[in-house]
Amino acid sequence: MTKLLSTSRRVEQMQAPVIAQVGALLAAHPRAISLGQGVPSYGPPVALLARAVTPEEDPSRHRYQPGDGMLELQAVWRAVIAEENGIGLEQGDMIVTAGSNMAFLQLMAVVADPGAQVILPLPYFFNQRMALEILGIEPVLVATDHAFQLDPERIAAAVTAKTRAIVTVSPNNPTGAVYPEAALKQINELCAARGLIHVSDEAYQHFVFEGATHFSPASVSGAEAHTITLFSLSKSYGIAGWRVGCALVPRRLMHDVRKVQDTNLICAPVPSQRLAAVLLAEGSEWRKAKVAQIAALRQPLIRALAAMSALLEAPVTEGAFYFMLRLPRTGPDMPLVERLIREHGIALIPGSAFGAGPQMHLRLAYGALTRASLDDAMARLRQGLSAARWV
Amino acid sequence: MTKLLSTSRRVEQMQAPVIAQVGALLAAHPRAISLGQGVPSYGPPVALLARAVTPEEDPSRHRYQPGDGMLELQAVWRAVIAEENGIGLEQGDMIVTAGSNMAFLQLMAVVADPGAQVILPLPYFFNQRMALEILGIEPVLVATDHAFQLDPERIAAAVTAKTRAIVTVSPNNPTGAVYPEAALKQINELCAARGLIHVSDEAYQHFVFEGATHFSPASVSGAEAHTITLFSLSKSYGIAGWRVGCALVPRRLMHDVRKVQDTNLICAPVPSQRLAAVLLAEGSEWRKAKVAQIAALRQPLIRALAAMSALLEAPVTEGAFYFMLRLPRTGPDMPLVERLIREHGIALIPGSAFGAGPQMHLRLAYGALTRASLDDAMARLRQGLSAARWV
Repeated sequence: MTKLLSTSRRVEQMQAPVIAQVGALLAAHPRAISLGQGVPSYGPPVALLARAVTPEEDPSRHRYQPGDGMLELQAVWRAVIAEENGIGLEQGDMIVTAGSNMAFLQLMAVVADPGAQVILPLPYFFNQRMALEILGIEPVLVATDHAFQLDPERIAAAVTAKTRAIVTVSPNNPTGAVYPEAALKQINELCAARGLIHVSDEAYQHFVFEGATHFSPASVSGAEAHTITLFSLSKSYGIAGWRVGCALVPRRLMHDVRKVQDTNLICAPVPSQRLAAVLLAEGSEWRKAKVAQIAALRQPLIRALAAMSALLEAPVTEGAFYFMLRLPRTGPDMPLVERLIREHGIALIPGSAFGAGPQMHLRLAYGALTRASLDDAMARLRQGLSAARWV
Repeated sequence: MTKLLSTSRRVEQMQAPVIAQVGALLAAHPRAISLGQGVPSYGPPVALLARAVTPEEDPSRHRYQPGDGMLELQAVWRAVIAEENGIGLEQGDMIVTAGSNMAFLQLMAVVADPGAQVILPLPYFFNQRMALEILGIEPVLVATDHAFQLDPERIAAAVTAKTRAIVTVSPNNPTGAVYPEAALKQINELCAARGLIHVSDEAYQHFVFEGATHFSPASVSGAEAHTITLFSLSKSYGIAGWRVGCALVPRRLMHDVRKVQDTNLICAPVPSQRLAAVLLAEGSEWRKAKVAQIAALRQPLIRALAAMSALLEAPVTEGAFYFMLRLPRTGPDMPLVERLIREHGIALIPGSAFGAGPQMHLRLAYGALTRASLDDAMARLRQGLSAARWV
């Protein structure tokens, strides 16, 4: 038997999934506190769950549904988006996917051919870079400022004849930065002027704090023709495992979007779509109360991080449930992450996975933290970083 | 505002999803009988549904699960595959996806770079061709014989230095052909000898009739190192809308497979995985009874088609729930499909979507047909094809 021919270089060159690596370390150290994976502390309320998922034998309830998404879900989601985001939508402008990660991958296949370029501000959400690499699209990485805010002029300077799209994630994963309306409009207008798509990832839209406000670029009249907006229910409603998100898509792209959806997913999981429809219609007050619980962690957390200023710098950002910790050192960060888990019982995500640098960074997720574990978590972090300081 | 730059040629050149096109026609003609989409007549039993999907508030039940699949599902599925298919598996050889379509797309990204070739016997399952096109892989189409059986010599002759994989679908979509063990072994040995991957799509494994038997090439000792096997629960258990399938993957590919899974899906929908585990553990007797109901349609159907021999030729195949009708004419088939729906109330899928030719073909799906509607369906088909004959 001869050896297998080489597998694809496109995937070989990609980074391994970092959440799984940290997860494996956590599994071996079950008493560690996780500030790793980006999940909220809550799941959906039982009363709405019970209404959404009833056991029924009717075979048609278990079959494929329209590729764009179930009509009942599309209707309620469009109404919610009109009200919350100010984006007017008609049928045919939305595709429901098994998470907005998938929407990003599928849409990049439609927007750009191999060899084209897509601009990602640094630090990026790693799955977005990975999606571009699978598709043979070149990620063009553009620095943000010291507070992780967009630099529209630097982005404009990075546009070439090969550029097809500019991605913004606000509130940001991994930094928590909320981009102001003016900056997002500037990017969106740049896209209009240069014939590009603006991909606005708004998975964390409901997590904005201390007076910051969320802005959807597609709400500007005319912007819908060149703006893709990504929404997720994973974080807002605590249903990451159900896999349901959506994208708002310029209508002229929908013909091609449907081809990719049909090839990859056919349709989003139907029970998940049913639950999404119920949560969107009736879950917003419950969701706000849950987000308020996360908000209540912020001041104690910000104070604890400020008290560690000899060990780290933590730019105070106003959204998502992340802080990106900047350490006064350089070099590979995974060994430090491993030591923090193994020796100090505290898990964070290495900043290198997001392309952060040149200084070492660690992403801290506080969505699943509780008030009871916060002081312990911060003590472990202080102890771990102090011990690692001279290594 | 300038115009958007052109969208990707890779997707632009792909065919549009044919099931959706026929579905739109059906929606406009609700009294038409559908022999179109490939779904069985049944959904899952209420008792097992109720056990699998219980409303529980524990947030951890709603979060991401391991990318490969939930441990409880992996364990039961591996045991079932060992028993039913004779494939010995260890942890780390399987990935659970939102349907086996998705598994195919993801695995092709891992197996082949843009410009490489993958061999698809004709007629092919359209989503597989579409997946290759999204990834920039060249589909190499190889004819089968008059009864839609593999021609291993022709396949061997199509292998080039660019070939990375050979795909077989048995029982076949769209033809219903069940490939004998000898032919599948020949393809699998060819792959071993030439350093290729054999992709064995076994989504219809439980639908074999009249003494035909299903064979899994990965059951041959040593074949697991170069064989990908795709399994689906959509057809066997009537849960297409839940989106759950899996792939058995040579272990050396798993590192790269996990990168693509993380970028596209993160993990398969968790409630769907729970239902899958219950159905696999306890649903096999119930499933056999349901498949027997479909089997009971075959003889009346075969007789009715034989009585139309002036209008069509229907090679009697022994698997899935499809027959591929060959018509004594050539030319575009979509106009005929539209007339059959509009004027005669009977829906089939145009053979051109599967690359069938040069004669015109129509795929007939009988999985969702009932004994009560069979005679009516056949009368409509006869009437439609007779009327269209001279057009």
